Amino acid sequence: MRVDGRVATELRQVTIETDYIKHPEGSVLISMGDTKVICAATVEDRVPPFLRGQGKGWITAEYSMLPRATEQRNIRESSKGKVSGRTMEIQRLIGRALRTIIDLDKIGEKTVWIDCDVIQADGGTRTAAITGAFVALTLAMEKALKAGKIKEWPINDYLAAVSVGVDSEKGELLDLCYLEDAAAEVDMNVVMTGQHQFVELQGTGEEATFSRAQLNALLDLAEGGIDSLISIQQKALGSIAERIQGKKEGAQA
Amino acid sequence: MRVDGRVATELRQVTIETDYIKHPEGSVLISMGDTKVICAATVEDRVPPFLRGQGKGWITAEYSMLPRATEQRNIRESSKGKVSGRTMEIQRLIGRALRTIIDLDKIGEKTVWIDCDVIQADGGTRTAAITGAFVALTLAMEKALKAGKIKEWPINDYLAAVSVGVDSEKGELLDLCYLEDAAAEVDMNVVMTGQHQFVELQGTGEEATFSRAQLNALLDLAEGGIDSLISIQQKALGSIAERIQGKKEGAQA
Amino acid sequence: MRVDGRVATELRQVTIETDYIKHPEGSVLISMGDTKVICAATVEDRVPPFLRGQGKGWITAEYSMLPRATEQRNIRESSKGKVSGRTMEIQRLIGRALRTIIDLDKIGEKTVWIDCDVIQADGGTRTAAITGAFVALTLAMEKALKAGKIKEWPINDYLAAVSVGVDSEKGELLDLCYLEDAAAEVDMNVVMTGQHQFVELQGTGEEATFSRAQLNALLDLAEGGIDSLISIQQKALGSIAERIQGKKEGAQA
Amino acid sequence: MRVDGRVATELRQVTIETDYIKHPEGSVLISMGDTKVICAATVEDRVPPFLRGQGKGWITAEYSMLPRATEQRNIRESSKGKVSGRTMEIQRLIGRALRTIIDLDKIGEKTVWIDCDVIQADGGTRTAAITGAFVALTLAMEKALKAGKIKEWPINDYLAAVSVGVDSEKGELLDLCYLEDAAAEVDMNVVMTGQHQFVELQGTGEEATFSRAQLNALLDLAEGGIDSLISIQQKALGSIAERIQGKKEGAQA
Amino acid sequence: MRVDGRVATELRQVTIETDYIKHPEGSVLISMGDTKVICAATVEDRVPPFLRGQGKGWITAEYSMLPRATEQRNIRESSKGKVSGRTMEIQRLIGRALRTIIDLDKIGEKTVWIDCDVIQADGGTRTAAITGAFVALTLAMEKALKAGKIKEWPINDYLAAVSVGVDSEKGELLDLCYLEDAAAEVDMNVVMTGQHQFVELQGTGEEATFSRAQLNALLDLAEGGIDSLISIQQKALGSIAERIQGKKEGAQA
Amino acid sequence: MRVDGRVATELRQVTIETDYIKHPEGSVLISMGDTKVICAATVEDRVPPFLRGQGKGWITAEYSMLPRATEQRNIRESSKGKVSGRTMEIQRLIGRALRTIIDLDKIGEKTVWIDCDVIQADGGTRTAAITGAFVALTLAMEKALKAGKIKEWPINDYLAAVSVGVDSEKGELLDLCYLEDAAAEVDMNVVMTGQHQFVELQGTGEEATFSRAQLNALLDLAEGGIDSLISIQQKALGSIAERIQGKKEGAQA
Repeated sequence: MRVDGRVATELRQVTIETDYIKHPEGSVLISMGDTKVICAATVEDRVPPFLRGQGKGWITAEYSMLPRATEQRNIRESSKGKVSGRTMEIQRLIGRALRTIIDLDKIGEKTVWIDCDVIQADGGTRTAAITGAFVALTLAMEKALKAGKIKEWPINDYLAAVSVGVDSEKGELLDLCYLEDAAAEVDMNVVMTGQHQFVELQGTGEEATFSRAQLNALLDLAEGGIDSLISIQQKALGSIAERIQGKKEGAQA
Repeated sequence: MRVDGRVATELRQVTIETDYIKHPEGSVLISMGDTKVICAATVEDRVPPFLRGQGKGWITAEYSMLPRATEQRNIRESSKGKVSGRTMEIQRLIGRALRTIIDLDKIGEKTVWIDCDVIQADGGTRTAAITGAFVALTLAMEKALKAGKIKEWPINDYLAAVSVGVDSEKGELLDLCYLEDAAAEVDMNVVMTGQHQFVELQGTGEEATFSRAQLNALLDLAEGGIDSLISIQQKALGSIAERIQGKKEGAQA
Repeated sequence: MRVDGRVATELRQVTIETDYIKHPEGSVLISMGDTKVICAATVEDRVPPFLRGQGKGWITAEYSMLPRATEQRNIRESSKGKVSGRTMEIQRLIGRALRTIIDLDKIGEKTVWIDCDVIQADGGTRTAAITGAFVALTLAMEKALKAGKIKEWPINDYLAAVSVGVDSEKGELLDLCYLEDAAAEVDMNVVMTGQHQFVELQGTGEEATFSRAQLNALLDLAEGGIDSLISIQQKALGSIAERIQGKKEGAQA
Repeated sequence: MRVDGRVATELRQVTIETDYIKHPEGSVLISMGDTKVICAATVEDRVPPFLRGQGKGWITAEYSMLPRATEQRNIRESSKGKVSGRTMEIQRLIGRALRTIIDLDKIGEKTVWIDCDVIQADGGTRTAAITGAFVALTLAMEKALKAGKIKEWPINDYLAAVSVGVDSEKGELLDLCYLEDAAAEVDMNVVMTGQHQFVELQGTGEEATFSRAQLNALLDLAEGGIDSLISIQQKALGSIAERIQGKKEGAQA
Repeated sequence: MRVDGRVATELRQVTIETDYIKHPEGSVLISMGDTKVICAATVEDRVPPFLRGQGKGWITAEYSMLPRATEQRNIRESSKGKVSGRTMEIQRLIGRALRTIIDLDKIGEKTVWIDCDVIQADGGTRTAAITGAFVALTLAMEKALKAGKIKEWPINDYLAAVSVGVDSEKGELLDLCYLEDAAAEVDMNVVMTGQHQFVELQGTGEEATFSRAQLNALLDLAEGGIDSLISIQQKALGSIAERIQGKKEGAQA
Repeated sequence: MRVDGRVATELRQVTIETDYIKHPEGSVLISMGDTKVICAATVEDRVPPFLRGQGKGWITAEYSMLPRATEQRNIRESSKGKVSGRTMEIQRLIGRALRTIIDLDKIGEKTVWIDCDVIQADGGTRTAAITGAFVALTLAMEKALKAGKIKEWPINDYLAAVSVGVDSEKGELLDLCYLEDAAAEVDMNVVMTGQHQFVELQGTGEEATFSRAQLNALLDLAEGGIDSLISIQQKALGSIAERIQGKKEGAQA
């Protein structure tokens, strides 16, 4: 039995509330247990300098935590005057992952800004951010398509992310809450498409290491979690989900 | 008739949801119309260097907006590497105002951090932040008193803030939404106690000026708004409100 | 009797020395008692990006103190690598105030930079800066008009600023020196035109509050001080003052 | 055949020159083909604040490139005034990896600084940095042990890192040079111990994805590369290698 | 004949006004022609970390220009968030030069901060700053000695600085104004003691070079200028000058 | 006898290894004793804003040290977020010196970036950087000429730099190593052309001063050192040296 009563293969309760903020083109509040992240997608009519004149778009992400999202108050990065290495790693990961399931040629010279702001943290904030950001991006693309700002549907597949880890006593666990994460020997984040293709795999021994056999057990757990998350994304998207379904017969069907 | 159907002396709908985030000692989500601010109070067991060894506490505030709180996306201050002049003005104002209604000697060598994070903006974010921060601070003090961290109740009076302004056609208005604020000739923020004492008064002609008669009309409007806001604070605080009532027979009673 | 022998309604000795530095289009050294500020106005042939192509100008201000303008040496903001919140508040205030009494359409796509550098501080530096900056701006506009860089006289009215405050023993006082300012319960800065219209009103209880009656007493004091300051500005401007007189029959006449 | 004539399972030529710089406690110049990195280990007699008083040590890494290490000149991070997200990711990775194979309790309250400076880059700089840094760290520990600064040998196992990737035509490849890396669909960095335990696994689809089968093929390639690198580390260390051998019968024996 | 009517060996008009600002322990306004610099000396009762516990003091200097000290407005270094290379060179030079003529053991663990703020610039600001700073430092030491803060007179000799340069038509010139400086092929700053000992010599070919013969001619010119400047310093110091005289029979006597 | 066995007029062993890094247009590793600097020249097809449209080029230099180039580890300037005053002085000096011996009109609107990275430091890093940078620049110009990127040979003369100093016991010394530099009373850097013309002369009394006679002795020493360095540059350049010989019959012939 885990610290919050779940079994090893069980996700925390996940909810995705769409159109959570009124101004962005797409937005959600995603909750995975006590982890809560506001994800907003903004469509801007220009691209970074390195892409100008190529007729294709870009997706970039920013990630932040409110100071009291965590047990101890964090100093704001704006007050410190610089963004931490952890924040940079996470926002680079989110942007990279989302760029994998979208055809950037189809959105033209536009940048989609993905803002992931953690308002309450209890482990797994980066994976919740990716899972929520996918929905916010899809909502923004639907709006852009309806408004004629893009001509063709650009999103090819689902995208979700989940953490898995190894506890020295309980073995491999899915979707670690903060207490589990702090105690884990191995921590792994898996980002996958609806087709069970890997988009990103980041496994780290925390002053420990892991074997090939443990890796395989972790990946099996992660695939199950990804399937559940994509089902929840589909429900949140309602009829918009069909745009993605039309292209792919999802592994989770 | 105003842009959102209100009369000149009418506040927007105000709600204050207490204990909105789980980690802080006190927190609220305050909504004034479409303006939504998360206010969190953190009690830290030390004071800034200039106060050490004096046996008294401090209150400091930070204010920020999510990038898509606004119609146009704002660049994060952490990305720019510095905090804007506007943000600094607002957070200095919030801290200064809260320090007026609390007896800092009674909290001992502690700092209360007030974090006001705007998740959706539609005018009046700084006044909503003050009104919400007062409730978050009160909740944190109640928790500290119950836990024995402070010995005596430190808050002397209510504190609320509201904006008023002058429209060239509609005259003096209470609680401006963003569209009204953008069009106003004069913009004034009033911070007041439950006893109708001024804590802070900031009036600005926006490429315009105002007369003494207009000032008086604006202050009358503001007093009415402050009374209504304090009633809402009292309801949100429930029985905790009596701690403040016990000291003062509030003007709004 | 006040700490420096003045009565409550009395300004310190004020002098305005015009053309104090040789390079700027307009410059003054203003002294209010021991507070001394160099104000310089620079006319630049372009506007910030948000104004380009609109045919109108802009006024922006910067404020700084020499490290030993004060009793204790201040660390330079250039050494700290960032501008303090206090500095930002003051320079935003100066710019906003000056923009109120000038017709920005009449100066075309130009920016006037106002630099206020405090070389000696004894309270009231921001109000001295505004009062001096008005003269420096007027001198620069006269020079621009004579040189044919602007076609029409753009300044509509006088502008001056003064501090007022409440001392717990001596009551309401005009033009606080540093010792008075440090002891005051209430501190208020009033920026007014020659027509006694308010441009900016900033009143702050310093861990104290103030009543409507005290507000009125403070505003009465401030009006008197503003009248005296405008007379001194007129003398400093000499014949240039008539350009402003021609438009307005000033309340101080 | 690969762009430089290698077969898919072949490393580039690897050399490790020990004691390359005279001042550091341990240093090497590692070359993997045209990628050249100076790795230096510095032992400092104190630990970061979060570890003080616990009797254990810390390892932290910094990574940088000379501006002309690359085909196009890079702007120095010191000139930009901030460290890029990529640099932060890499230096966090190097530090984390090295902390896995050392017993930090055995070095006492010391920090080992690992500086990895790329003087010429041709792909795989972060993996070369880890492989070289392991040797520099081992040299520094040998010196510290001989000098009596540490009492017991702290390094438990070998550590090396290698890149693997998927080319759309040539399939899975070991140790990508820059041209291969730029063309790869999937890019993976594997950090492993002498016992074939994973320390870190980072796989990224570059606007592409990868299957579980591809993952397995990549990991098989990486294991072979790690074995070869550890043999080269052993040769570079000479008799010092026996300290590590004595503890572990390495998988590469 | 030079641009301002001087002969080659002639200084501009130099004045030194002592006690120019009221707060610092020593201050002057030095004018060399149209170059005007406020120099202030602050005595602080502590030394930088590298000197703690050694019983000796330190002198450090900061240099800045008001934005409109120059023909074109300069952007403030506080707004840019960093100090330029030119500023750093100058302030390091001023500090280094002053440390040469003072016995730092005699001032105990104190730091003297020298602030040189250029309020009007017309060439030679760094040499004027040094010449003025010497007087401000001497005034501060006199005050410290009288107040018993230091036990023994610490200043051993006079210190002054002057620029010399080579004009392609007019040959070697003393004390270049801005127009001369901009046209000069060679620019040299000479810092010397009253004994004609060099403290600092910085000669630069501005896209040109200079011969040993030219160097000698420039140094002869500089010596004459230094003698005149020291006479002016002596007059400004009045009876305090005797403290320095008592130790040295100055070459300029 | 000096600390490393040299006589007063003797350089340390100097080697210049050309084409040390593969990517830059010109590069060397220069060693002067234990001081080792990588100098790289990059040709960029644009000039800074202040030179645009004038048909002439620019040379700019950057200087840095690896953290363990020195006995004690230095904190990276990228980690500190700013470049030190010392670094700025040195890189300004290198750029200024190189611009003296090149005809910038002949390279067209190009910037040559000179990167000097010290990988091991033992005194005299700035003079070694200049001497090495001259060779790297010459190699880059040869390559540009052969590639037709520039039409005419732009380098007019040799350029080398050396340190000289005064030791209280041993008198004037050439080419100080770190131990000598730390003990020296006077430290001077001399940058000269092949024609024995001064390009830059920077002499500093380190809490000491120096006489005109000492200056002359130091300059005599420096001239001898410069001649030797230019001979070594000629050998390193091989046949390319003739391009410079063709223009000047060097003093060292």
